[in-house]
Amino acid sequence: MSLNTFGHLFRVTTWGESHGPALGATVDGCPPGVAVDEAMLQTWLDKRKPGQNKYTTQRREPDQVKILSGVFEGQTTGTSVQLMIENTDQRSKDYGDIMDKFRPGHADITYWQKYGIRDYRGGGRSSARETAARVAAGGLARAVLHTLAPQIEIKGYMTRMGAHEIDRSRFDWDQIDQNPFWTPDAEAANTWADYLDGLRKSGSSVGAIIEVVARSVPAGLGAPIYGKLDTDLAAAMMSINAVKGVEIGEGMSAAMLTGEANADEIFMGNDGKPVYSSNHAGGILGGISTGQDVVVRFAVKPTSSILQTRKTITKTGEAAEIITKGRHDPCVGIRAVPVGEAMMACVLLDHILLHRGQVGGAVGETRGHIG
Amino acid sequence: MSLNTFGHLFRVTTWGESHGPALGATVDGCPPGVAVDEAMLQTWLDKRKPGQNKYTTQRREPDQVKILSGVFEGQTTGTSVQLMIENTDQRSKDYGDIMDKFRPGHADITYWQKYGIRDYRGGGRSSARETAARVAAGGLARAVLHTLAPQIEIKGYMTRMGAHEIDRSRFDWDQIDQNPFWTPDAEAANTWADYLDGLRKSGSSVGAIIEVVARSVPAGLGAPIYGKLDTDLAAAMMSINAVKGVEIGEGMSAAMLTGEANADEIFMGNDGKPVYSSNHAGGILGGISTGQDVVVRFAVKPTSSILQTRKTITKTGEAAEIITKGRHDPCVGIRAVPVGEAMMACVLLDHILLHRGQVGGAVGETRGHIG
Amino acid sequence: MSLNTFGHLFRVTTWGESHGPALGATVDGCPPGVAVDEAMLQTWLDKRKPGQNKYTTQRREPDQVKILSGVFEGQTTGTSVQLMIENTDQRSKDYGDIMDKFRPGHADITYWQKYGIRDYRGGGRSSARETAARVAAGGLARAVLHTLAPQIEIKGYMTRMGAHEIDRSRFDWDQIDQNPFWTPDAEAANTWADYLDGLRKSGSSVGAIIEVVARSVPAGLGAPIYGKLDTDLAAAMMSINAVKGVEIGEGMSAAMLTGEANADEIFMGNDGKPVYSSNHAGGILGGISTGQDVVVRFAVKPTSSILQTRKTITKTGEAAEIITKGRHDPCVGIRAVPVGEAMMACVLLDHILLHRGQVGGAVGETRGHIG
Amino acid sequence: MSLNTFGHLFRVTTWGESHGPALGATVDGCPPGVAVDEAMLQTWLDKRKPGQNKYTTQRREPDQVKILSGVFEGQTTGTSVQLMIENTDQRSKDYGDIMDKFRPGHADITYWQKYGIRDYRGGGRSSARETAARVAAGGLARAVLHTLAPQIEIKGYMTRMGAHEIDRSRFDWDQIDQNPFWTPDAEAANTWADYLDGLRKSGSSVGAIIEVVARSVPAGLGAPIYGKLDTDLAAAMMSINAVKGVEIGEGMSAAMLTGEANADEIFMGNDGKPVYSSNHAGGILGGISTGQDVVVRFAVKPTSSILQTRKTITKTGEAAEIITKGRHDPCVGIRAVPVGEAMMACVLLDHILLHRGQVGGAVGETRGHIG
Repeated sequence: MSLNTFGHLFRVTTWGESHGPALGATVDGCPPGVAVDEAMLQTWLDKRKPGQNKYTTQRREPDQVKILSGVFEGQTTGTSVQLMIENTDQRSKDYGDIMDKFRPGHADITYWQKYGIRDYRGGGRSSARETAARVAAGGLARAVLHTLAPQIEIKGYMTRMGAHEIDRSRFDWDQIDQNPFWTPDAEAANTWADYLDGLRKSGSSVGAIIEVVARSVPAGLGAPIYGKLDTDLAAAMMSINAVKGVEIGEGMSAAMLTGEANADEIFMGNDGKPVYSSNHAGGILGGISTGQDVVVRFAVKPTSSILQTRKTITKTGEAAEIITKGRHDPCVGIRAVPVGEAMMACVLLDHILLHRGQVGGAVGETRGHIG
Repeated sequence: MSLNTFGHLFRVTTWGESHGPALGATVDGCPPGVAVDEAMLQTWLDKRKPGQNKYTTQRREPDQVKILSGVFEGQTTGTSVQLMIENTDQRSKDYGDIMDKFRPGHADITYWQKYGIRDYRGGGRSSARETAARVAAGGLARAVLHTLAPQIEIKGYMTRMGAHEIDRSRFDWDQIDQNPFWTPDAEAANTWADYLDGLRKSGSSVGAIIEVVARSVPAGLGAPIYGKLDTDLAAAMMSINAVKGVEIGEGMSAAMLTGEANADEIFMGNDGKPVYSSNHAGGILGGISTGQDVVVRFAVKPTSSILQTRKTITKTGEAAEIITKGRHDPCVGIRAVPVGEAMMACVLLDHILLHRGQVGGAVGETRGHIG
Repeated sequence: MSLNTFGHLFRVTTWGESHGPALGATVDGCPPGVAVDEAMLQTWLDKRKPGQNKYTTQRREPDQVKILSGVFEGQTTGTSVQLMIENTDQRSKDYGDIMDKFRPGHADITYWQKYGIRDYRGGGRSSARETAARVAAGGLARAVLHTLAPQIEIKGYMTRMGAHEIDRSRFDWDQIDQNPFWTPDAEAANTWADYLDGLRKSGSSVGAIIEVVARSVPAGLGAPIYGKLDTDLAAAMMSINAVKGVEIGEGMSAAMLTGEANADEIFMGNDGKPVYSSNHAGGILGGISTGQDVVVRFAVKPTSSILQTRKTITKTGEAAEIITKGRHDPCVGIRAVPVGEAMMACVLLDHILLHRGQVGGAVGETRGHIG
Repeated sequence: MSLNTFGHLFRVTTWGESHGPALGATVDGCPPGVAVDEAMLQTWLDKRKPGQNKYTTQRREPDQVKILSGVFEGQTTGTSVQLMIENTDQRSKDYGDIMDKFRPGHADITYWQKYGIRDYRGGGRSSARETAARVAAGGLARAVLHTLAPQIEIKGYMTRMGAHEIDRSRFDWDQIDQNPFWTPDAEAANTWADYLDGLRKSGSSVGAIIEVVARSVPAGLGAPIYGKLDTDLAAAMMSINAVKGVEIGEGMSAAMLTGEANADEIFMGNDGKPVYSSNHAGGILGGISTGQDVVVRFAVKPTSSILQTRKTITKTGEAAEIITKGRHDPCVGIRAVPVGEAMMACVLLDHILLHRGQVGGAVGETRGHIG
């Protein structure tokens, strides 16, 4: 059914609300015998943690993750893993103003319509805080990948903030961790700093594009139709709050290409494996990985909680104006970077498990040989 | 596990290969008591059928659908429905040339690597022929929707073919069925006719963008996280052959907007329901439908089977050149229109069933009232 | 995948080990707007709680359940519900003796073989303590049933302890809650008290049979094949620790009947609904409820942790003898009664949601009318 | 959702009605590269085929299975496999008498109540004919097992027919295929022949108990809670038409044992693997296989379609009497033997795939070593 669950074999169910006592992820199907501890997961949560600089919400949450089950003496046991993060900074009084008004562009109105429950405390379940649980689960997926397929490297970064895109000619993989925007273009980071400062001061917000790349993914991951690697990546990314578009490789621009321009030509590499002249496919053909970089991109819309006045209605149907005070991200896309990475880690691990279940063999072992 | 299955409650499993004896869809969870017959499904299959004009593959398939189970005396019984389409025009000799070479941009190589099986007969399971089964299932979903939610209208159309986009100011809903490209812009249809004719004659192919809109969808469909309406639409569309990007509403462009530009302001309509000043959200907030038009867009890459020479390798790793003779679509996006509509129908029906299962009440009935 | 999950729409994933920090249940798909609080769940946990009399393990656990998510201001929100029970009495030193030996009849050896992890602290995940999480989830299911289908009454009771069966002629529904064995036969309760005392003193243990009955279940719940009501009940009960057999209605004895003896004859009742001359079917025909009492029975094997010496081996393959000291239930079947009730509640609720999802209408509303 | 689907990774969805044009099984998740052809599947279908002797229904169906997809050049491709069996002997006129009356003990009434559809043609979906599709799927599972785990041997047999049980002291494995009742006790076969002849002539029917054993199953198959091997076997067997009870190993009798009697003592075998003094556990501890024989037993109720007069009602609620003419099995348990075997094959294969997916390694390889 999977209202709150994703994954086939490595199944993650997230739970918890923005201002409840805690939130977390229940992970079923985690392989046994993998070294993991809370510190390993914390690394990734710290990357997503709010309040680290002036560009993210000033809500202060330590986002300390606890492992409540499934790990014994430093190793996964093969049984369900419970990851819990307690909420500590629950200043729900900040939200009093919006108890009866719906924020335009926010899930306030649809949750109310569907469930008849208004969790005005920061949006409850629809809050981006839910993504902390995904990052914890992604940390666990990374620990398993580190054991099963240590060669795989996953990296997310911003390629656009509002009006400003990066210049791919300045792309520097090592720059990504050097700036608060996780961008590979150092110059863009400077531009964005000023740009976002201006937006923040004016009480506005802005959207962003995040790209997540996985390197050294073995060929052969994925399966037909609804087990396609790209199907699952699309679902994984679109399920993140505020995401409105997902692209694989060439993405929407594939519509503009001719067949001869789009087809990545194939050659034999020096290591006896196929190599490709280009990667329009984003590392996936027919839903199955090619061995090239897996490239997924998604657009995050601007935060709808802004200090600018917008027209809306109340629960009783009265016309109203709304300004959302409180502590919000001017560009929520920044903190979506580790979330996108976490989803990539979960999806890749899930397909590695699926592959060895259905096809067999060690990780990366496939049945068809070339050469 | 769902390698070949999609849906939560209305579950569709497709089966069959391009050149096997038959293909089809097994539908589990179809509600009982719905009037349906083969002619109703055939309407939609005819829309997707190849060989109808010079812009689509000249393979001739009647694509006649048979209902083998789940329907008795003209009504669904509530048990599993089997929809079968026999393959009749299986000229597999056309494919002899590609038995040992991998078509660049095609799933030939990844299927071989993963499964160690080369179904050279038209790509086997990875062929776009699989989508015929989806259209049959979508026809069944439409029949159910017609009974449960007759107000819902689903329409797909092309908004871009290669270099040429439609002009939204000429958008004409009634034009869509009047041209071979299912486009709402009559002038674009003329331009595209010449453009595609040129591409076809040169043995090339081109990509496209398809938009699918559902009107009069009740508010409240969807659920958190992995049961989000947009999550499921993204997965549904990305699972179609050759799709490389999916957008909801504003899509990738949402990244360029500020919060105040993106937030669709809310007012009370004359009928006592909320109305919105705009629809950047594409009819979905927090994964739940707002009652506005649900708008999804996807990009289809150009057919990789082309008459232009491309470099590739053989199964034994030899360098080679390849030209794909045979009967192919110069713009496979055309026939993706009814497929996108079918997926929209399946996803909406699935969420209608899910909603009444989890929340209860009649179709479109929600728990929270406004006003 | 569902390693640790059960249910179609009301999906319960349990997590946690016998001696970890906590255990619990993540419930996805719970309907919104249902009144529930911790005290309502606690009622059922108290029924299962150890250490209440001399017939159950002397481990002292308050088994206090906390609701961490999915409930706001006393009502379910429709989002995932997290139920957590902290472990407090983790005297794991008691288990030191069995760190390297496998208890015969216990999952020690298979968990070790499969996962290569030995959680010697009370059996870890394979401990019957896992059932506390099910009882919590069952309490939530009961709260939802109380709202959706308040007429349904669920009751479990023991019908056999080892050599001693109840006498059905003394069956007294009101007696069930009056004795420590939850048996409807007061005389049996007396016999069992002496019998079990003897077994306990001799360091032995004994099996039991539990029957769970649901009254006033509407006709029409269930679905073909793997959505059969009896399929799900069989799976639910067999998934409880130590259960080795499950029966519906007549159960294994159905093999001894002729067709005319087994067929429950049908008449029209005074209320215009069908009534039956007998209930060999246990309230289920073709996997679908008839409106009669739903009757399921299961056998619980004797606790394998006993004070009598048994032959076994160590992890290194040495022959050994084992006596399991510590605090164990001489008849674990007693505490299986509330667990069986919890599973019945979960399965019935799940099928009520499934029915209204697939068939529609209010709870208990079916499509076919008689008369 | 799984109304008509079973399995985690090897997922079988059955479809079709007793008197529709065809029925079959859609198998998703079948491993690639396995040799299979229609003749291999036919072997098992022939075992279940009606009309082979006077003890089974005289309906004549060739039950010829066709493979419509997922197999290419004699090998599974890794994509969905469609197995179809056309119905040829659809003498639905025989059923005219029961169009408006409900057969006591049959799903007629519950299907009508739930779905509002009366498929009077032999019970439609609720007919035991559905099990032909399972046997086809089981044949495919056996082909895969033959490749992945050729040592596993699966055998079903009858241990009780009505009043008459086999004598275990005469148990002869080789006798099973030598008599029409698939019983290991040659003397019982003689007794049963007379007994059943009498029942058949008097228009009666009788129940039966079937035992299915799997030998040489590797240790380590199964997983906690809802992925337990016994949970899945219980669900698989209970989902077969007319089954009312399922037992693993000692089964319901486990309730009568003391802990010391029930605990199978463990020793080291000559081959360095654990051996057990007995097999009360039926080869499963904590839901995971021990390496001993996996033993499951189920009771089949007597056919409800009998020539003896029974009281019932009509769709309009009138009191009526009913005699079911037509061609029915006096002991449907006979033909349930190959069905039970098929379910065992499907469940074991599914768990082999699950195990290598979650835990890794080749078939039968586990992580924990003894000795």
